[in-house]
Amino acid sequence: MTEQSGPDSPDNRDWLRTSIGHSTPDTITVRGRDLASEVMGRMSFAELAFLLAAGRTPSEAETTLFNAVLVSLADHGLTPTALAARLTYTGAPEAIQGSIAAGLLGGGSVFLGPVEDTARFLNEILASIPSDKQSEDSALESAATTAVQRALDAGVRIPGLGHPVHRATDPRTPRFFELADELELTGPNLRLLEFVAAAHRTVIGKALPINGAGAAGAVLADLGFPPPLARAFALLARTAGLIGHIAEEMENPIGLRLYKEVDARASRNAEPETP
Amino acid sequence: MTEQSGPDSPDNRDWLRTSIGHSTPDTITVRGRDLASEVMGRMSFAELAFLLAAGRTPSEAETTLFNAVLVSLADHGLTPTALAARLTYTGAPEAIQGSIAAGLLGGGSVFLGPVEDTARFLNEILASIPSDKQSEDSALESAATTAVQRALDAGVRIPGLGHPVHRATDPRTPRFFELADELELTGPNLRLLEFVAAAHRTVIGKALPINGAGAAGAVLADLGFPPPLARAFALLARTAGLIGHIAEEMENPIGLRLYKEVDARASRNAEPETP
Amino acid sequence: MTEQSGPDSPDNRDWLRTSIGHSTPDTITVRGRDLASEVMGRMSFAELAFLLAAGRTPSEAETTLFNAVLVSLADHGLTPTALAARLTYTGAPEAIQGSIAAGLLGGGSVFLGPVEDTARFLNEILASIPSDKQSEDSALESAATTAVQRALDAGVRIPGLGHPVHRATDPRTPRFFELADELELTGPNLRLLEFVAAAHRTVIGKALPINGAGAAGAVLADLGFPPPLARAFALLARTAGLIGHIAEEMENPIGLRLYKEVDARASRNAEPETP
Amino acid sequence: MTEQSGPDSPDNRDWLRTSIGHSTPDTITVRGRDLASEVMGRMSFAELAFLLAAGRTPSEAETTLFNAVLVSLADHGLTPTALAARLTYTGAPEAIQGSIAAGLLGGGSVFLGPVEDTARFLNEILASIPSDKQSEDSALESAATTAVQRALDAGVRIPGLGHPVHRATDPRTPRFFELADELELTGPNLRLLEFVAAAHRTVIGKALPINGAGAAGAVLADLGFPPPLARAFALLARTAGLIGHIAEEMENPIGLRLYKEVDARASRNAEPETP
Repeated sequence: MTEQSGPDSPDNRDWLRTSIGHSTPDTITVRGRDLASEVMGRMSFAELAFLLAAGRTPSEAETTLFNAVLVSLADHGLTPTALAARLTYTGAPEAIQGSIAAGLLGGGSVFLGPVEDTARFLNEILASIPSDKQSEDSALESAATTAVQRALDAGVRIPGLGHPVHRATDPRTPRFFELADELELTGPNLRLLEFVAAAHRTVIGKALPINGAGAAGAVLADLGFPPPLARAFALLARTAGLIGHIAEEMENPIGLRLYKEVDARASRNAEPETP
Repeated sequence: MTEQSGPDSPDNRDWLRTSIGHSTPDTITVRGRDLASEVMGRMSFAELAFLLAAGRTPSEAETTLFNAVLVSLADHGLTPTALAARLTYTGAPEAIQGSIAAGLLGGGSVFLGPVEDTARFLNEILASIPSDKQSEDSALESAATTAVQRALDAGVRIPGLGHPVHRATDPRTPRFFELADELELTGPNLRLLEFVAAAHRTVIGKALPINGAGAAGAVLADLGFPPPLARAFALLARTAGLIGHIAEEMENPIGLRLYKEVDARASRNAEPETP
Repeated sequence: MTEQSGPDSPDNRDWLRTSIGHSTPDTITVRGRDLASEVMGRMSFAELAFLLAAGRTPSEAETTLFNAVLVSLADHGLTPTALAARLTYTGAPEAIQGSIAAGLLGGGSVFLGPVEDTARFLNEILASIPSDKQSEDSALESAATTAVQRALDAGVRIPGLGHPVHRATDPRTPRFFELADELELTGPNLRLLEFVAAAHRTVIGKALPINGAGAAGAVLADLGFPPPLARAFALLARTAGLIGHIAEEMENPIGLRLYKEVDARASRNAEPETP
Repeated sequence: MTEQSGPDSPDNRDWLRTSIGHSTPDTITVRGRDLASEVMGRMSFAELAFLLAAGRTPSEAETTLFNAVLVSLADHGLTPTALAARLTYTGAPEAIQGSIAAGLLGGGSVFLGPVEDTARFLNEILASIPSDKQSEDSALESAATTAVQRALDAGVRIPGLGHPVHRATDPRTPRFFELADELELTGPNLRLLEFVAAAHRTVIGKALPINGAGAAGAVLADLGFPPPLARAFALLARTAGLIGHIAEEMENPIGLRLYKEVDARASRNAEPETP
């Protein structure tokens, strides 16, 4: 192979180039599409989010399933993330970006992170199965059993199983299986997750339901996203929920009232006790 | 007026209640809709985001226009927000929530904030027009002229006009006007923005184009959102762009290479000059 | 003046150079000092923070007063910033940077921001007084009266006055005046703040105490820092308080228990009322 | 054991109580000290930060060493954290809390996190040595060798060793050893770190220097802080550096110029190449 050496050779070209988006005086391009004529009015936000991260446009079925993932993770009430956003709004109402950012920062190993953890756990199991066997139930079942046994032996928690509130069934999970089936998008990660739950039940002797975060992680993995992006989309989804909370906080200051109640209680408790 | 005094009286009820979302062991509810049966597979993410913030479901036309706003603001290339997210990923790749949050934190008065500023400026002008006159062009024109003259006299910049790159026309703006027209959703804020641009041209003697952020702010105001939520949706949109940048950074570490180049240049420049 | 045109001319030199810090294989330099031999073991953290922002080393008296500002703003109990940090820790205990960042993001117009607002208000009044008159009480008094009257006429709140808890006296304020006096560092901003409080009392007919944030802002302004850096140092101070809260949260999970209590109360309140 | 059952019994008391700080109308208390009379003017900021996190006041020698840790980690030039803070300032100069938060969010596994990782690695090795043997060099050496061998066998990187710039010696490291020695505060973690470096050199056959982050982590561990707080103090230190960068950015907009240069380069590279 001869090396190019002219001004367009790979070595001479500036590495500073992105395929996400760019502008000229007359155009804006996102992932190779003209924003005004090809995206605005033609693609939904979820489709563009998929395109930006995956570099390809989702099919109609994929769009439906991807939307289902996003709506499933958007809100879960007064969680720590919603409370952090509302309390931050209380201190800095003029900088709403800080309120949203503060809410997202609680999306770690305990909340939202399990979406990523499940995708990673499933990805790793699949990587142990030859690709021509990944459609066979017996291969999935066997690999799931091995992985679950190994994780439990090592004292590691299996991601995607169990929920502190939805103890019997997380209502999102059967809906994900149903939708994936209807849309003919049930992939190896989602099927594997069922075998993981079954193996866990067999080993432990007690059933733990597949939780919504785990099912969402499996669906995102089947849509082709690497595990960190599974968490990223959970954060995108939650941003919509946080905006809902901030919109409500503007009318009904729950964060502010909570702070005042906390402050009053803590002050009372801090007073020296009478002998 | 007689006071209620029973256990359900307003005074006795706990103020800690949100209408955004809540869970029971068997159900998850968002803004009064059952998540599994009424939202997943039935509503798109953009529709849910609208519902969560507005408390009502958008019409089909509103959904199309709202999606157009979100996609228009999702990405603009290697902006400070994208660079901050990529650099943060370089330092903390295991905590992707921090990378997204860092990117959003640059959404202030210079970037993305103009969406809110334009909505607020238009809202304030409209508030000076009796509501039965807000559909009359002459009333809008006159109020726009007064407001622009007053702002310029006070040395205040008019939001929504001008763009450092799109000097003649921001390609998003005519598309917004076209879409709003097609969808029969052109409202007083968007019409007023045209009069504001015209008044500015008359007073200054030079045309500045309506920029995409300004048009988006006007559209969001016409959809019924208060100004701070206009910025909030710009941040939601940008979250999708940031995820695109992080996805690319995982494959092509532009942030890391930029840091190394900057570090090398700054180190070279810091060396004492030879006499 | 002849233009330089060689390789060291200003036009040819790379603009990418910082005076904050740089490294070579053998040395680390911060603001021109060798870190290992001139800073470590010789300068306190507060002195270095002052040096990094101001570009000069503080005197011993300035160091004492600057430390007093920092300790005065470090903590105020279970404020919204402390709660946001603790709740974020609940969701992402593995990413403590997110917990601290979330706490800082509530440092806006309502909390901590008043330090900056007071410094700015005082700076603006001083800018209206000829510099050779700024040491005269009569000039300060007259300018304070004019500024307060104008602000109140415009419906603008005077920063630095009043406190929801410390209604009679904020205990930090007399201590700041005492320390500044002992250290012979009472400057025009701090003196002006007293005239502002007096003018406000005269106009309104009711005394509002100078609050600790306001006094801290005046002291930082007298130390030579521009208003945005006054808020920045309040955030540095608060970082220490947030670390204290996180340290306690690791042992005594107040944030986690608060979330669980909130969730239980909100769930109970969300249940449909019996007819 | 008899259960207490009165109003002051542990079960009846409100759990919402913090020992970090609280206020009454006349007083502010931090970790049990009266802020105005016992802290302001009497304790330095570093001493208060230590007290808030540890619940005890440091000795004079501990204060000197703790200050040395903080100043050693405050700045390292135009790192990703400094760049993220400066770029965020470019977008939101009015919300300086977002700029600082964005900078801190890059303090993860790659930058600043190694302070925590080293403290944890050393803590875990020490936990394998009976406490009455932790002062014996032979016990430390043997445990270090075992741990290093095990980590390398598992393909795990040893934290605290090596630096991309300071290839021979990190100038902070010998200074830490010297200071700890002078102050008679050399503890088991710092001594163990030397044995870890030696064991690594023996196994690998190549010397890697102890880096400054690793030495700082060992010192913080010897001062009694758990590993997560070691990273927290690194973030406190870096906050001072970030304020320095923001102060400089206000005068010399490196972040803004960098963005413009990046944007111009990326735009040029995005243009379709001529055939």
